[in-house]
Amino acid sequence: MESPTSYELLNKIDSPNDLRQLPAEVLPEVCGELRQKIIDELSRNPGHFGSSLGVVELTVALHYVFNTPYDRIVWDVGHQAYGHKILTGRRDRFYTNRKLNGLCPFPSPSESEYDTFTCGHASNSISAALGMAVAAARKGEDSRKVVAVIGDGSMSGGLAFEGLNNASSTPNNLLIILNDNNMAIDRSVGGMKQYLLNLQTSEGYNRLRYNVSRMFHHWGILNEERRKSLIRFNNSLKSVITQQQNIFEGMNIRYFGPVDGHDVQALIKVLREIKEMKGPKLLHVHTVKGKGFKPAEEAATLWHAPGIFDKETGERIVMDTTGMPPLFQDVFGQTLLELAQQNDKIIGVTPAMPTGCSMNVLMKAMPDRAFDVGIAEGHAVTFSGGMAEEGLLPFCNIYSSFMQRAYDNVIHDVAIQKLNVVLCLDRAGLVGEDGATHHGVFDMAYLRPIPNLIISSPYDEKELRRLMYTAQLPNQGPFVIRYPRGRGVLTDWKCPLEAVEIGKGRKMKDGTDMAVITIGPVGNVAAKAIEEAEKNNNCSIAHYDLRFLKPIDEEMLHEVGRRFKKVVTVEDGVLKGGMGSAVLEFMSDNGYTPTVKRLGIEDTFIQHGAVKELYAICGIDQTGIYNTLIQTLNL
Amino acid sequence: MESPTSYELLNKIDSPNDLRQLPAEVLPEVCGELRQKIIDELSRNPGHFGSSLGVVELTVALHYVFNTPYDRIVWDVGHQAYGHKILTGRRDRFYTNRKLNGLCPFPSPSESEYDTFTCGHASNSISAALGMAVAAARKGEDSRKVVAVIGDGSMSGGLAFEGLNNASSTPNNLLIILNDNNMAIDRSVGGMKQYLLNLQTSEGYNRLRYNVSRMFHHWGILNEERRKSLIRFNNSLKSVITQQQNIFEGMNIRYFGPVDGHDVQALIKVLREIKEMKGPKLLHVHTVKGKGFKPAEEAATLWHAPGIFDKETGERIVMDTTGMPPLFQDVFGQTLLELAQQNDKIIGVTPAMPTGCSMNVLMKAMPDRAFDVGIAEGHAVTFSGGMAEEGLLPFCNIYSSFMQRAYDNVIHDVAIQKLNVVLCLDRAGLVGEDGATHHGVFDMAYLRPIPNLIISSPYDEKELRRLMYTAQLPNQGPFVIRYPRGRGVLTDWKCPLEAVEIGKGRKMKDGTDMAVITIGPVGNVAAKAIEEAEKNNNCSIAHYDLRFLKPIDEEMLHEVGRRFKKVVTVEDGVLKGGMGSAVLEFMSDNGYTPTVKRLGIEDTFIQHGAVKELYAICGIDQTGIYNTLIQTLNL
Repeated sequence: MESPTSYELLNKIDSPNDLRQLPAEVLPEVCGELRQKIIDELSRNPGHFGSSLGVVELTVALHYVFNTPYDRIVWDVGHQAYGHKILTGRRDRFYTNRKLNGLCPFPSPSESEYDTFTCGHASNSISAALGMAVAAARKGEDSRKVVAVIGDGSMSGGLAFEGLNNASSTPNNLLIILNDNNMAIDRSVGGMKQYLLNLQTSEGYNRLRYNVSRMFHHWGILNEERRKSLIRFNNSLKSVITQQQNIFEGMNIRYFGPVDGHDVQALIKVLREIKEMKGPKLLHVHTVKGKGFKPAEEAATLWHAPGIFDKETGERIVMDTTGMPPLFQDVFGQTLLELAQQNDKIIGVTPAMPTGCSMNVLMKAMPDRAFDVGIAEGHAVTFSGGMAEEGLLPFCNIYSSFMQRAYDNVIHDVAIQKLNVVLCLDRAGLVGEDGATHHGVFDMAYLRPIPNLIISSPYDEKELRRLMYTAQLPNQGPFVIRYPRGRGVLTDWKCPLEAVEIGKGRKMKDGTDMAVITIGPVGNVAAKAIEEAEKNNNCSIAHYDLRFLKPIDEEMLHEVGRRFKKVVTVEDGVLKGGMGSAVLEFMSDNGYTPTVKRLGIEDTFIQHGAVKELYAICGIDQTGIYNTLIQTLNL
Repeated sequence: MESPTSYELLNKIDSPNDLRQLPAEVLPEVCGELRQKIIDELSRNPGHFGSSLGVVELTVALHYVFNTPYDRIVWDVGHQAYGHKILTGRRDRFYTNRKLNGLCPFPSPSESEYDTFTCGHASNSISAALGMAVAAARKGEDSRKVVAVIGDGSMSGGLAFEGLNNASSTPNNLLIILNDNNMAIDRSVGGMKQYLLNLQTSEGYNRLRYNVSRMFHHWGILNEERRKSLIRFNNSLKSVITQQQNIFEGMNIRYFGPVDGHDVQALIKVLREIKEMKGPKLLHVHTVKGKGFKPAEEAATLWHAPGIFDKETGERIVMDTTGMPPLFQDVFGQTLLELAQQNDKIIGVTPAMPTGCSMNVLMKAMPDRAFDVGIAEGHAVTFSGGMAEEGLLPFCNIYSSFMQRAYDNVIHDVAIQKLNVVLCLDRAGLVGEDGATHHGVFDMAYLRPIPNLIISSPYDEKELRRLMYTAQLPNQGPFVIRYPRGRGVLTDWKCPLEAVEIGKGRKMKDGTDMAVITIGPVGNVAAKAIEEAEKNNNCSIAHYDLRFLKPIDEEMLHEVGRRFKKVVTVEDGVLKGGMGSAVLEFMSDNGYTPTVKRLGIEDTFIQHGAVKELYAICGIDQTGIYNTLIQTLNL
C-alpha cells in the first residue's frame, strides 16, 4: 500500500467507538494511516518505534472487536501501545509523548480509562489481566472481556509463567495474545523462543482444530458439555495429526494460531470467533517488529528506539558527538572486554539488554564469554551465583529499576554466600523519558540493608573503570557498581586499570564552612554548585565523594563529623533510607551533631521528562544544589 | 520392611564414599536405617519431616551414583536434605539440627562441602545448578556432573521456569530431578501440577523412548551425530505413539520418567544410564511425602513440620496451650474471615501458604473467596493488583522474607497505581530455627522507600485486628501489615473491629528522662525493660508505639523531639534504613538533636536458633534493651 499522505480516517477517530462505526473494509486504510502517524510523530519526537509499528493491525483489530474501555486490554511493556494511545483519544496530544507533562511513555491508568494497568516492566500482563478477569467473574460482569497482549520476549520472564500456571485454576475468560516477533530489544533467546518457532510447523493441525472450534461456536455459545466434548475431540485429533507439543494446552489454556498479525481482517475474524469462548485461551500472532518501515524491519534492535530520523530516507539523525564524553554504557562495554581479556574467569550476564548496556562489545569479541539469558532478572542473578560458586566471576548487568525483580536473588543467592558476583546497575538514578517505572532511584535504599554487599558508584568514567577493575580482584565478595544512563563528564577517559581501596572515598576539595557529601556522577553537578557558591558568597565548602555507599568511609565521615557543623548530602536516589540516611546513621552512632540537609528524590514517584528537567524538579540540578548550599550556609 | 532398630550400616557411613563402597543389594537396608534415623531424630528435635522422608531413596541413589562432592547436588528448598546431611558426615551432629550453633536448617555451603548452594527459598536450584554446570564446561571439568533436585511445588515459581528456559541455550550437562509428590506445604496447585499428573499417562511411551536412549548409550557415549538421530527418532516415535505433550522437551530438555522414587535400585539404574548423556535432561521421579511413616503419608501438610511426636504411636505431642495467647496467624485467619463476611470485596491470596498463614480458615468457610496461587510471590502481588484495579480488595499474605521475591511487583504493580491491596507480611522479624534465609528482617528497610505505601505493624493481637479492619476501609491505597511468627501477648484478644487513624501511633506511657520508640510486638519486650529500668533506677521513661512506619506520626515525633534529649528506638528489623533510621531522618529534617540509640539487627545475616536466643544475640530481648536504657540514661 502507498503511504497515506493525510490522516483522513484517523482524524475522525476520537475514540474506539468511532473506529467501531467504520465498515471493516476500510480498516486496512486506518492501519495505514495509524502506521504513518506513528512514523511521522516518531521521526521528530523520539520514542519506542519498532514495537508499536509491529502491532498496528492488532491494535486496530482489538479495539474494533472488543468493547473498550468496558473490555480491558492490558499491554505488556507498553512501548507497543502508541497506536492504542492514538486511537483512544490522545491523537492530538501524541506529539507530547514522553515529554515533561506530556503523554506517559507507557500506558498509565492515571492518564486514560483505556489504560488499564502500569506496564513499564515486562511480563506482568498475564497476572494483572487474570486478576481483572477473576474480578469480572466475581462481580458478575460476565460480559466483560479481558485481554493481555504479551510479546515473546516478555514470555521468558518467570512472572509470565506464574501467570500462565494460574490462568487455568480459576474460572475466567482471559484471552492472552502472544505477540510473537522473535524479539525482545535484542533477539529473543531461550527454550521458549525455540518452542514458539516450532509451533509454526503445526499450522495445518491448528487450522483444522480452529475450524472445529468455530463450528461448535456457530452452533451457539458453548455450554460446558459441548466444551468438554470439544476438548475430547481435540485431544484425539491431536493424537492423530500432530507431533506437536503445546505448552499452553498442557496448562489447560486453549491455544489458537499462529495467525498473521498484519492481516487486520483475519485478526478481526479470529478474535470475533474466540472472544466468547469460555475459559482461558491464547492466540498466537506473528508480527514483524518495525513492520511497514523498511529500515526498521531490517534492523529491529537499532530501530527499537532509534531517536529522530528522516522518514523519507530512513536515515537516523545521529547527533555529532565529536568531542563529547562517552556514554557510561560505552565505557562499561569496552572496559568489560579489556578486563575479560586479562581475567579468564570473567563472564558477562545480561537479561535481554546486550545492546542497551553494551555487553554486546564482549559478546562480539568473545562470544563464549557472555550470556543473554532473556528477560529474566532473577535467573540472571542466581545463574551468576551458581557460576561464582564454581570460581567464575560474573559481571551481571541489570538496569537499576529491573534489579527490583531480582531483590531476593541478590539477598538469598548471592549475599548470604558472599559470592564473587559483580552486580552492575546500569540506568541508576533518574532515567528521563521512560518515567516512573524506569527510574533507578530505589537501589541504594534497597541494597544498603543487605549484609556482605559492597556498594559503589563512580564519580566519572575513570572511576567506573577503576571500580570495575577493583571488583574483579580476587575474593571481593558481591560488588555493586551503579552508574547512570547517558554521557559521562570526561572526554579523556581511557585511564589505566588500577585498584581503588574498598570503602574509601575521595576528598575532592577542602573547605571550612560546610561539607558537601555526594555519591556518583551527581557529584559533578554538586561540584559546579559549590564553585558557584564559593564565588558568589565568599565561603569555603569542602566536597567529599563517598564512592562507596557500603562499606562507608568512616575515616572520612569522622573528619566531616569533627570539622563541620553543616553538611549537605546529594544523591540521585530516594531520600528515605538512602545515602544521606546512611550519613545520619553514622553521625548519630558516633555522637556528631551537624545540621544535615539531604538532597535527593522525595517520597513520590517521579514522572517522565528530560533528565535535566527532572533533576531541576528534584532540586539536584546545579541551581537546586546551589540554593540549598546558600540556605544551609545562612542557617 | 520392618523398622530397623539399630543403624548398623548407617553408622559406618561417615561420607558418601563409604556409601559407595557398599554393594547395591544392601541399599534398601541403608534406606531403611536412614529413614528410621530421620524419624528418631525428628521425633525429639522438631524440624521439616515429610519432605526428607520422601527423598530417602533418591538421596541414597544420588550419592551412590554421583561422585559427591566433586559432582554437585543442589537441593531446592533444602528441608528435603536431612538424609543428605546425615550421609555427608553430619550423622552424629544431626541432633543439633536447627539449634543455635548446631546444624543449619537448610544446606549451607559454609557448613559442608557437600552443600553447594543456599536453598531456603524455593525454585532457585535450576538457575544455580545451571550456573555450576556452565562453569564446569567453561573450566574444562567436563566430567563434573551437576544435579538439581526440585519439587513440583517449587516448579510453579517463575525462577524455576526462567532456569528451564535457559537450560538448553548453553552447552551443559545439567540433570534436573523433578521430585514430584504433588505437594508444596499444602497441595500443589496450577496448570503445571495438572500437567505433571497427566505425564503419568504416557509411561508406555516414555519407557520405550528411554529404552532406545539406553541402547544408544550402550553403544558408547553419544556423539553429536547420534544424538541428533536419536532426537529425530524420538520425535517420530512420539508422533506415532503418544498424544502426550511434554513441556520440557518443548524447551529442548530431554525428559525421562516418571519413575518410582522409592525403588532405590531402579533409581540407581536410571541415574547410571542417563548421567553421561550430553545436554540438559530431566528425570521425573514420583515420591510420597512422608513415605514410610503412615501418619505423615496420610496427612502430609500436618506432617510437613509436625513438631515433636511419639514415633511409635504417631501421635504429635501438642503443647497444652490453654490460657496462652493465640498465634498471630490464628488471629489473622479468624479476623480475615470476619472481615470477608462483612465486606464482599475482600479476597484472600496466598502463594502456597494457606496453612502456614491460616488463610485456610477463609478458604474453608468461603472457598470462592481465596486463592492459593502456588509458590509464586510475584504473581500473587500482581494478580492482587489486577483484582484491586477492578475494585476488589485483596488481602495478599506473604511471609516477609518471601516478599523479597515480589519487590518489583509491590513497586510497579501496586504502589505506582496506589491500588487497594493489603499486603500482609507474616513471619516478619526474626523467625527462629529456619535461620538466615527466612528471617523477615529486611522488610521495613526495603518497603519504606516506596512511595504511596502505608506500612504498619501491630503491638498486639487487638492491634492486628484493628489494622486489618482499617486496611479494608475504602480507598486506603496499598497497606502493609507486618507481624511476627508465633504467639501474641493477649489471651483476651477478640476485640470489636474498629478503625485506627492512619499514621497515628500511641503513647503507651509517659515519662520525663528518656523516650523509647518501638514498632510492632517487640514493643512489649521494651515495655518490660522500661518497667524494670524505672524500678531499679528511679527514672521515668516514656514509651511510644509508632504503629505506622509510614506515614510516620509526625506529631508524636515532634513531641519526642521537643521534650527529650535521649531517645532509644527498638525494632525487630535491620538497622540500616529501618525504623530507627526513619526517626533519625525526622529529627534531622526538623532540627531536633536528641541522642538516638538504635536497637535492631546489625549488618550481618543472623543464624538459626530459638527466637529468644536470637533476640538476646541481637540485644533486643528484655536484658539487652534494659542494658541499653541504662547506658543511655547514664550518658
